[in-house]
Amino acid sequence: MTTDELTESESQIGFGLTLPLSYDAAVNTVTAALKEQGFGVLTEIDGKATMKQKLDVNFRPYTILGACNSSLAHRALSEDLQIGLMLPCNVVVYETDGGSPVEFLDPVKALGAVGNEKINPVAEEARARLTQVAQSLRARQ
Amino acid sequence: MTTDELTESESQIGFGLTLPLSYDAAVNTVTAALKEQGFGVLTEIDGKATMKQKLDVNFRPYTILGACNSSLAHRALSEDLQIGLMLPCNVVVYETDGGSPVEFLDPVKALGAVGNEKINPVAEEARARLTQVAQSLRARQ
Repeated sequence: MTTDELTESESQIGFGLTLPLSYDAAVNTVTAALKEQGFGVLTEIDGKATMKQKLDVNFRPYTILGACNSSLAHRALSEDLQIGLMLPCNVVVYETDGGSPVEFLDPVKALGAVGNEKINPVAEEARARLTQVAQSLRARQ
Repeated sequence: MTTDELTESESQIGFGLTLPLSYDAAVNTVTAALKEQGFGVLTEIDGKATMKQKLDVNFRPYTILGACNSSLAHRALSEDLQIGLMLPCNVVVYETDGGSPVEFLDPVKALGAVGNEKINPVAEEARARLTQVAQSLRARQ
């Protein structure tokens, strides 16, 4: 699959693309790409395993990565203690028959919802970095 | 401290109250109250420890609990795979000189941002349950 064939998406709360990779490879690739832009993965929720364990239902392979750039998080929390309600910044990876979609929560939309203008520069920087992550994923294909 | 003295808060993205408890006791009490309303804590981020480790800066005791009612999460994800960008539902607890504030992300505001009307009933139920959690915390004082 070439770059031209990648499906891109933009929604009310985020943006993303579909990687022509297996689900496991996609999770690893996204985690590595986040790290390159200074985002550690603080939390990782295995949606399929959680639903099997808690509800005994079968769900598709689905991971929620809690991505956090500690420096940006510290700046935001130092301005507004409520910002933790929107941290870390989620990145979702899941399995479909046509590849592995990756969705990034848009920090400008998420942190902007708090309604504190002092947070805007931090949110803009976080979005710029996550956009870079998405671009690096496109470039890898 | 009586119930009348509890400080309550409502913001653009959530609601909360300040518990007249130590930080550690507040985290434990909130976790137990969430469980009573069917919310497990899937993730727990120790903000103070994370900032010390990653940035070598001192921050106040600050926890982000990732609360999830698996049944509601399954219903929401079955309607819209993008919902994972707003899951789990964060509950923040931190330390101040005047007690331990607890803030709940409002699921109606958070999940509503996705713009999928089918999610609304799930978001309303999640909010009702979290409101119950807040009320049970008030009643405990």
